[in-house]
Amino acid sequence: MTDVTLCECFVRDGLQHEPDFVPTATKRDLIERFAALGFTRIEATSYSNPKVVPQFADASDLLRALRRSDGVHYKATCANPRAVERAVADVAAGHGVNEISLLVSASEQHSQTNLRRSRAEQWDNVRAMAAAADGRFRLVGSISVAFGCPFEGAVAPETVIADVERFAALGVRHVSLGDTTGMATPQSVAALCHLVRRAVPEVTPIGHFHDTRGTGLVNVLAALDAGVRFFDASFGGVGGHPAKVRYGSGFTGNVCTEDLVGLLESLGVRTGIDLAGLLDTALACEAALGRPLHGRVTRSGLNPLIGDGTAVAPPAAAAHGR
Amino acid sequence: MTDVTLCECFVRDGLQHEPDFVPTATKRDLIERFAALGFTRIEATSYSNPKVVPQFADASDLLRALRRSDGVHYKATCANPRAVERAVADVAAGHGVNEISLLVSASEQHSQTNLRRSRAEQWDNVRAMAAAADGRFRLVGSISVAFGCPFEGAVAPETVIADVERFAALGVRHVSLGDTTGMATPQSVAALCHLVRRAVPEVTPIGHFHDTRGTGLVNVLAALDAGVRFFDASFGGVGGHPAKVRYGSGFTGNVCTEDLVGLLESLGVRTGIDLAGLLDTALACEAALGRPLHGRVTRSGLNPLIGDGTAVAPPAAAAHGR
Repeated sequence: MTDVTLCECFVRDGLQHEPDFVPTATKRDLIERFAALGFTRIEATSYSNPKVVPQFADASDLLRALRRSDGVHYKATCANPRAVERAVADVAAGHGVNEISLLVSASEQHSQTNLRRSRAEQWDNVRAMAAAADGRFRLVGSISVAFGCPFEGAVAPETVIADVERFAALGVRHVSLGDTTGMATPQSVAALCHLVRRAVPEVTPIGHFHDTRGTGLVNVLAALDAGVRFFDASFGGVGGHPAKVRYGSGFTGNVCTEDLVGLLESLGVRTGIDLAGLLDTALACEAALGRPLHGRVTRSGLNPLIGDGTAVAPPAAAAHGR
Repeated sequence: MTDVTLCECFVRDGLQHEPDFVPTATKRDLIERFAALGFTRIEATSYSNPKVVPQFADASDLLRALRRSDGVHYKATCANPRAVERAVADVAAGHGVNEISLLVSASEQHSQTNLRRSRAEQWDNVRAMAAAADGRFRLVGSISVAFGCPFEGAVAPETVIADVERFAALGVRHVSLGDTTGMATPQSVAALCHLVRRAVPEVTPIGHFHDTRGTGLVNVLAALDAGVRFFDASFGGVGGHPAKVRYGSGFTGNVCTEDLVGLLESLGVRTGIDLAGLLDTALACEAALGRPLHGRVTRSGLNPLIGDGTAVAPPAAAAHGR
């Protein structure tokens, strides 16, 4: 039994903007480690155009090599019907994912900038993708800039709720609410999560918070208080919005998995994650990128007051990491 | 009118474990900037033994040079009656501080390790310091490891409350509750803060949280919810417990002032801090240490939804800082 369901996003969201190609074998090893640790949702890859995002040129090769664990949802991101057709072909070949995500932006200008389509065009695109999916996957909707847009400012909760309802009408039962550039506050998180749960109860909301302004964990707790039980996170906090590419500058990054797991477990919220292996896996993620990442418990060890009071010390290799 | 009172700790707590001496003129400039920004409590220096902590060998020189602002409490840390005598001498010479802090540890083993005295011996020491202070300063009590000890584990709230009562009996009206090694949780923070406020209502509690495990802001909000209105923080998150010296390893660091101010203001909590100058001051602190620090809004800019919705962009010099 777990109280929350965490999706580990390192291999897809985390690597999306990494300039160097991470070898397929490394990605496969990490995904298998994540499953062994207890993650039941894992972002595996993206069916992006390899010319645009070479990091995921190995999508089908990776999935062919990947050893699956029972009860785990492996997610692939799809940007258009062609991507969904590739996902369907991999299913037909016996090595598909069992979950795909469909992305919209809650603001017109972010949609134009990030997806290069108007919101109306992107919704047409999403409907075509849902049709192409043909019932073969669990569908996950993702709504960017749900708590505020760097171009347009405040986003009306009604807009987000209408998007969640559109997803629901397509049979989507899980929708992530993305704080793409760190504009959410505990107040706006509580308000929107309560509204979504009340207005579209058949949809399970997923909290997807970025740590752009250091508020990732603060906003997770606000969502948890508002009844949200699904959260996205990434080891080392890598990923998040492409600050340098599109917004000029800025710290970016997802909520840090290892710090999130440590916080939740210290609160008695059961994550289902094997704490004894958590920090070594965080180090494996750092090794995959060849640099120290943002996890603090990776350096400090987990809170010794978690659970039975046995201290979980930082792994030896991290002692002088930074 | 402000809703909270923040103490800027960069120049004392922040520099305590920095290996290189920061010039007196730099310290003076920073303290004057902090006052101009709106901080009404500022840690200025420590009357430490210069042979043990050479960073503060310039305590009296700094205070002699420092231009004061009305309504600001400038704090000096005192470890023993000799330190308080130096503080009194500076007052007599016309350039003293108007606040000193007196430190105890809530656990026996942390007291022995950090202060090299038993708790009973340290309380004798504190009583001697309070007597030597002779009513010339606002006294601030500081209780280390109030939310858990890295050596002994859980700390009984009754122990902390008894310490707050001892401080109150000495005329101390402000007591900081220190989460020295990041073992506090929102639950333990809420519980202890409520207990202290109820048991010793004449004392104003101060939240002093470290970001050892990424939970600094989470714990500030829990304390705020529990009625705490005074908080300590440090630009760039520098300072905190001496991880490498005493605990072998570990990320350390105070709550990051610029991220804290951004979060509080985004919640409508008035800090009294000039937001237009906040990030340039964060950069000045980075310049003083010659390296990028931990502030995220320093890179990302303040939340554009703060206040009237006008974006506060990151300063140009930080755009490619990291």
